[in-house]
Amino acid sequence: MSSHEARLDALRKELARRDLDGFVIPISDEHMSEYVGAYAQRLQWLTGFNGSAGTAVVLANGTAGKGAVIFVDGRYTLQVRDQVDGAQWDYASVPETSPVKWLGEHAPEGARIGFDPWLHSRAWADALETALAKRGAAAVAVESNPVDAVWQDHPAPSLAPALPHADDLAGQSSAEKRAAVAQWLAQEHCDAVVIPALDSIAWLLNIRGSDVDRTPVALSFVIAHADGTADLFIPPEKVTADLTAHLGNAVRTAPVSQFVPALQALTGKRVAVDPDHAVAAIFTTLDSAGAAVIAAPDPCILPKAVKNAAEQAGHRAAQARDGAAVSRFLHWLSRAAPQGAVDELSAAARLQAFREETGSLRDLSFDTISGSGANGAIVHYRVSAETNRPLEPNSVYLVDSGGQYPDGTTDITRTVWIGPDAAPAEVKDRFTRVLKGHIALARAVFPKGTNGSQLDTLARQFLWQAGLDYAHGTGHGVGSFLSVHEGPQRISKAGGNQELLPGMIVSNEPGYYKTGAYGIRIENLVLVERREIAGAEGEWLGFETLTHVPIDRALIDTALLDAGERAWLDAYHAGIVERIGPQLDGEARRWLEAACAPLPA
Amino acid sequence: MSSHEARLDALRKELARRDLDGFVIPISDEHMSEYVGAYAQRLQWLTGFNGSAGTAVVLANGTAGKGAVIFVDGRYTLQVRDQVDGAQWDYASVPETSPVKWLGEHAPEGARIGFDPWLHSRAWADALETALAKRGAAAVAVESNPVDAVWQDHPAPSLAPALPHADDLAGQSSAEKRAAVAQWLAQEHCDAVVIPALDSIAWLLNIRGSDVDRTPVALSFVIAHADGTADLFIPPEKVTADLTAHLGNAVRTAPVSQFVPALQALTGKRVAVDPDHAVAAIFTTLDSAGAAVIAAPDPCILPKAVKNAAEQAGHRAAQARDGAAVSRFLHWLSRAAPQGAVDELSAAARLQAFREETGSLRDLSFDTISGSGANGAIVHYRVSAETNRPLEPNSVYLVDSGGQYPDGTTDITRTVWIGPDAAPAEVKDRFTRVLKGHIALARAVFPKGTNGSQLDTLARQFLWQAGLDYAHGTGHGVGSFLSVHEGPQRISKAGGNQELLPGMIVSNEPGYYKTGAYGIRIENLVLVERREIAGAEGEWLGFETLTHVPIDRALIDTALLDAGERAWLDAYHAGIVERIGPQLDGEARRWLEAACAPLPA
Repeated sequence: MSSHEARLDALRKELARRDLDGFVIPISDEHMSEYVGAYAQRLQWLTGFNGSAGTAVVLANGTAGKGAVIFVDGRYTLQVRDQVDGAQWDYASVPETSPVKWLGEHAPEGARIGFDPWLHSRAWADALETALAKRGAAAVAVESNPVDAVWQDHPAPSLAPALPHADDLAGQSSAEKRAAVAQWLAQEHCDAVVIPALDSIAWLLNIRGSDVDRTPVALSFVIAHADGTADLFIPPEKVTADLTAHLGNAVRTAPVSQFVPALQALTGKRVAVDPDHAVAAIFTTLDSAGAAVIAAPDPCILPKAVKNAAEQAGHRAAQARDGAAVSRFLHWLSRAAPQGAVDELSAAARLQAFREETGSLRDLSFDTISGSGANGAIVHYRVSAETNRPLEPNSVYLVDSGGQYPDGTTDITRTVWIGPDAAPAEVKDRFTRVLKGHIALARAVFPKGTNGSQLDTLARQFLWQAGLDYAHGTGHGVGSFLSVHEGPQRISKAGGNQELLPGMIVSNEPGYYKTGAYGIRIENLVLVERREIAGAEGEWLGFETLTHVPIDRALIDTALLDAGERAWLDAYHAGIVERIGPQLDGEARRWLEAACAPLPA
Repeated sequence: MSSHEARLDALRKELARRDLDGFVIPISDEHMSEYVGAYAQRLQWLTGFNGSAGTAVVLANGTAGKGAVIFVDGRYTLQVRDQVDGAQWDYASVPETSPVKWLGEHAPEGARIGFDPWLHSRAWADALETALAKRGAAAVAVESNPVDAVWQDHPAPSLAPALPHADDLAGQSSAEKRAAVAQWLAQEHCDAVVIPALDSIAWLLNIRGSDVDRTPVALSFVIAHADGTADLFIPPEKVTADLTAHLGNAVRTAPVSQFVPALQALTGKRVAVDPDHAVAAIFTTLDSAGAAVIAAPDPCILPKAVKNAAEQAGHRAAQARDGAAVSRFLHWLSRAAPQGAVDELSAAARLQAFREETGSLRDLSFDTISGSGANGAIVHYRVSAETNRPLEPNSVYLVDSGGQYPDGTTDITRTVWIGPDAAPAEVKDRFTRVLKGHIALARAVFPKGTNGSQLDTLARQFLWQAGLDYAHGTGHGVGSFLSVHEGPQRISKAGGNQELLPGMIVSNEPGYYKTGAYGIRIENLVLVERREIAGAEGEWLGFETLTHVPIDRALIDTALLDAGERAWLDAYHAGIVERIGPQLDGEARRWLEAACAPLPA
């Protein structure tokens, strides 16, 4: 019996012991985080699947098919078959089906299907209950997770210290932020708000941590009160003297074990909770305690997204530093790659080393996507020893990476032609269409009130003219030494309904992917800024480009650029020489200046 | 006492007689039509206001303010003060407030506020009930409209004959359409669908009428059944022998008085009704009868919007005819206007005459917007003897008009420079930005699945670059010898969520309006068509421009156009010479050829 087969067997025995006929295993944590700590990687432990999104449903053996189904989306169709044993597991595709839909069709009559209410939203739990009720089956919220009961060597949640995030970087003290939340609570006629989202907690209290890879947050919960005080539920091991001093008297700390009792003590209070960022267990605990639960958006999300002057200055400084590191990398690549000595793994390692040499890198902001040739066409590619490819002569190399610095989070994609010959016309055509879309978005001017979905088509239009598109959004929000994916704003075909406000940061990252051949993406971060326009009516906004790294001229078909686009690119490159040039020396500097020279007429 | 004062007085007495403390008077009919017949113009009769949108609330005198409030939106802020006596009426602005909101704040405790359930949606009636309940007041659905009781010389609904719409123009027989509706009913597990929308009825039964100005529909109701038959409730006077033959045996006709009894007979049936296109009374009647009401979109709306081959051919023929009429008008205007002999009214009359000379005009498709100078900046301007302005030398003239032809409905806006001097640089700059947006939308290529909101920004982007915009949508659907405004598709900042499907027609009408100075709009109708693109991935769509009338070169700053835009305009104009040229003779033809010559290099 393989180890994963034994784990599935052990889980089924545990379910039987608990009188459960099935159980749902998502990739999720108590905070509904995008990335979760090792202790919460239950799906990977059980099945071997290590993608970023997926869910398993386990029933008694033989109940329906193999009685064990793993659900993934189109990104992971191939990977799941590689990693998860088809003798034990059936594969299912989202969104064609979903765990809830599948259970509504396959759960045995009278079955008791378990789920961990600390890992799912209330809406999901309600949908499961409804779907199962139609089959005469029941959804059972478990007290403790049965996977954890059979997980030998289950890693404990991280106990790394939580660290103060200096007020001069945050631009606003926690007391000021809590006062604003208190004012919001008063407006909403609420007594308290429960904040389980880790980046909201980090923002509100000006703290950072290292409990989750790539996102500098500290595992904890907060209840903020209408008087401006807050309760922080956090393991005592994480609370240093520094942190205690930083938090001050108005923030009380208590062990995480006190979080549920604290919710239960809110009897009779009006308590705001964000249904998109709080798990079902928080709602049921408050309901049982007799609290009046008010569904409202987490009040930290919007002010966190709108960067203040200090945060904007921090991002500019981080980008200047990061731009120099990435430029050094591209210079190194331009010499090393043609010698055939570089592969995806070594390139990613060298890029990380250049970032580390800045002396202020705290972490990468996500796992580097280092894709050579056909691997570049896999949008969410994660290089491993098995998939590692050399950067071959005359191929396209795509590298999407970012750093976590105390003053800002970066995220940049560059696509590079590995010579020695000239790039083929098709590749240059595609790259230039992506570039024209990138420039159209970078140059956009728009009235106050415009949302990201209204701008998305600007970035796609030139690909569309050729019958081409890309199957991902054009832009996502980015945190300040926080999550590299941050809401509520986004630029995408649908769902980008949040008005873009001055101070918001979004990525500008159109792409094009030819399956089995190559991938192209050009990503800069941009900052929403006010624009003064002579004769304008109303209030106008535009973007300041924050990222400063050359765009590979070897991939540009200059004949496809109009005068305005050329002017934008030349000015962009001139700005790089100005900002990044002084940080480079010798050959690297000469390389940068050549890479940033005006386009030939 | 003025006549309107006497009418308000009479209504209040009638309300008192009925033990009502107030009443709501919308502009609406039993079919929730955009344009309503004279019999339903109760707001105009009561107040004198003749705008297209507004609502009055009448309370007992002195209850709150004057006890009589008229609610209009920003378009009618000035007009309502001109037309409605401020001594009797208070003015209120939508959306700052609304009749429901206002009543929720001002209805006296215990008041009985009447509304006519045949003139409001169920959602509106529910909102009124909720708002009044908070004041301890009640919403009372009246059996008959108290305005009608005091309206001397109340015009009866039109009894004009309903006419067959030939199958070769419709492209599909009513039997085929009803079979498709029956199939939909089977899918939805419904026994019948109630269809009160007049254009849906006209489409489903292939009939037309002349009961409503500008929209060729016949006042009636339909209940369509799962067996493919239908009941048509219509005054017998309107049913000619021709119509009876056309409808066939599977469509039963009955007087309108039988509609409510027919609803009441649906006890125990599952009945589909569209909450956006059926008034509250239909729902309450079905509910009382014990029918199971299923809220579902009117099944005629989407197939009506997707024009079949015969309808597309009809539109092309109607546009060729209409384009010749409008071109003749523009030629006439180019000679008559500089002589100072033209004003807004005479221009509109001359344009109508040119359309009538085609011999197949059945009606205008809406009241012509004929706006000279500052009047052109009023987006929903309707010329009258009081507002009529001459077309002055060196001014901008905007004319938005359309015709109802048996084979298609047209809608076109042209903006013309009235010489003799050259147009000022600012006007040319604005016109050219509008033109660039119009061209960008006309040339758009987009993947299947794209909706109108995704394309809207293409039309605005060049105005936005100058800090300018227009406060209306970019495009609306258009019927086939039916409503000039037809859903579900639209091109607009928000709410254009319907996927654009091949065969749909939308307008392309960006504009710019300088209050007190001039208005610019360039409007063509375009047809969504499939595009074959070499090397394309997936299914692609674009627009065929249906409207063929020259765009005024005197207003174009050619330096602002890029090569692609010039090529589009030259090709567009060349197509006009080809299609419209042969219909014109002598001077008019020479004028057309000059107006359509390629732009100077």
